[in-house]
Amino acid sequence: MLLRKKKPAELPSLEETAEDFTITDGEKYVDEIFESDMKISRSFVHPHLDEEEYEENYARAIKELLATGEHKFFVAIDGYNRYLGHVWVCLRTDTVDFVPVAYIFDIETLFPGRGIGSVLLERAEGWAREKGARKVSLRVELDNPALEWYKRRSYHERAIVLEKEL
Amino acid sequence: MLLRKKKPAELPSLEETAEDFTITDGEKYVDEIFESDMKISRSFVHPHLDEEEYEENYARAIKELLATGEHKFFVAIDGYNRYLGHVWVCLRTDTVDFVPVAYIFDIETLFPGRGIGSVLLERAEGWAREKGARKVSLRVELDNPALEWYKRRSYHERAIVLEKEL
Repeated sequence: MLLRKKKPAELPSLEETAEDFTITDGEKYVDEIFESDMKISRSFVHPHLDEEEYEENYARAIKELLATGEHKFFVAIDGYNRYLGHVWVCLRTDTVDFVPVAYIFDIETLFPGRGIGSVLLERAEGWAREKGARKVSLRVELDNPALEWYKRRSYHERAIVLEKEL
Repeated sequence: MLLRKKKPAELPSLEETAEDFTITDGEKYVDEIFESDMKISRSFVHPHLDEEEYEENYARAIKELLATGEHKFFVAIDGYNRYLGHVWVCLRTDTVDFVPVAYIFDIETLFPGRGIGSVLLERAEGWAREKGARKVSLRVELDNPALEWYKRRSYHERAIVLEKEL
């Protein structure tokens, strides 16, 4: 006689549980953070890159970013400790104002429009303030609608990133 | 009897000799480069900083920039090997396009309007191309008239740097 294997209790979907999120330290979630970011960042890439080249260069870029400054991650999680979003903030010396600055390298949520991003941003700003940062700085692509989202949260334009293909 | 000390031959002014400039490797000139840049960069600083704080933070910011990537300096010099201007370029992995990118961290000349900056920029671009960079990227402050200068040299806007004071 075959014993039926007990089916694990099914968890409610992330979509449902995301309503009740909390913010916590993100260091234990870095693998999930970069896995999620690598997928999302793909859509902002302009030049043609095959998958292998993209993954190699993605890993190299992250390593270069991590090489300097003090880094901090926060994640939004649901009641089952499942990843819902993150913010990555880095404390350095600003190269224009020459004060301690917190660069927001990345802020993402699986479910936009539910306030997760706002709370993550506030948490990153709070951490930066405690660490002595005088300002927060970040880069937004021209084709990214997040520009208006930041402006509603008191961010103002300071500089332009210019490029030329070689 | 007192011997008259021979007066050293006086060199023509930089203003004159700058007409006949050449470009060369800048590594031997880094002290002069940063001395000049520290003065010029002061005018772009927004927050109040006393002199000591500025100099400390300037040194820290430069150290942080030098910690990652492959760096190259070129200088413009006159016929007496005197400094007239420089460009600082750094090869990294782009954090948005994930291709090798050359960041122009700094380009300055003592005598604007004589073509020194253009030739320095071309030299930096040439170096970057040889090194395999797919693009050149740089940041221009909103209140810096250099924005138009770059646009005339085929640079286009890619992103906005946003800030918020803490």
